[in-house]
Amino acid sequence: MIIMGIDPGTAITGYGIITYSGNKFKVIDYGCIRTSSKLFLDKRLCQIYNDIKGILDQYPPDAYAVEQLFFNKNTRTALAVGQARGVLVLAAADRGIPVFEYTPLQVKQSVAGYGRAEKSQIQQMVKTFLNLRTIPKPDDVADALAIAICHAHSYRLLEKTVLKGEKK
Amino acid sequence: MIIMGIDPGTAITGYGIITYSGNKFKVIDYGCIRTSSKLFLDKRLCQIYNDIKGILDQYPPDAYAVEQLFFNKNTRTALAVGQARGVLVLAAADRGIPVFEYTPLQVKQSVAGYGRAEKSQIQQMVKTFLNLRTIPKPDDVADALAIAICHAHSYRLLEKTVLKGEKK
Repeated sequence: MIIMGIDPGTAITGYGIITYSGNKFKVIDYGCIRTSSKLFLDKRLCQIYNDIKGILDQYPPDAYAVEQLFFNKNTRTALAVGQARGVLVLAAADRGIPVFEYTPLQVKQSVAGYGRAEKSQIQQMVKTFLNLRTIPKPDDVADALAIAICHAHSYRLLEKTVLKGEKK
Repeated sequence: MIIMGIDPGTAITGYGIITYSGNKFKVIDYGCIRTSSKLFLDKRLCQIYNDIKGILDQYPPDAYAVEQLFFNKNTRTALAVGQARGVLVLAAADRGIPVFEYTPLQVKQSVAGYGRAEKSQIQQMVKTFLNLRTIPKPDDVADALAIAICHAHSYRLLEKTVLKGEKK
């Protein structure tokens, strides 16, 4: 199965596309979508939407896993990331691609084995799982690949994870 | 000019379409898009996006004015509203319709004349400006019409208001 992992953001959205078959991982592609802070919001959201649609056309995934972010304080940041996240979820959902959400805790537990893992440990595990020579940069890309790995590990237990945070 | 005002939300998005010409207002249509909390996020965002696209097809506006929301505490709500807001902004931006943002303070100042106006005063002013028999319900619809009126009052001073909050 082809899995696309997404770490959403208005300035930088990380994406990572992997295959998972017979307990083996293979990287297909990864990178990030950057938008200029000089652009107005509407142009930035259009760019994120159109860029991710292009990537979805190139590598149509079987599953689309998006980080479920939490913010302790900054509601302004939450609103901004929410807007980017909205168009990123829409791009996949509009094509009928199943969308899944994972919290940072779920990603850490799945990739490093425990929820208090450091960012550097997660990145090292991503490199190892995917047999990469170096840790992908920026962090958003490594995070997106970690989310994709998390989905691969979790997809047999989907009923426990599908959009868990959003269903009332 | 035709102005569409939007009060974004995941459960209820209010919209109001008005014309403004020679200092006179006329209502074209108003209403709300509701999504069920029983649906997963991806389906709710698709519904909001497709419904607003249908309304944009029916009444293509010259300007699209969206409330710029602020949240004091609840980052979870900010993230959720942000997601709805993202797809609502995208729907207009993707068609090249100019998108504008107004804060609740700007709307109150513009519609009622001062920033500490009560919600009931705003609603009464909306009814008066638009020559309506009753105050539109739910509140999200009256808010959307107030945002459209705010844009009509402000559009000569666009350079001061265009997406003010989002430009860095």
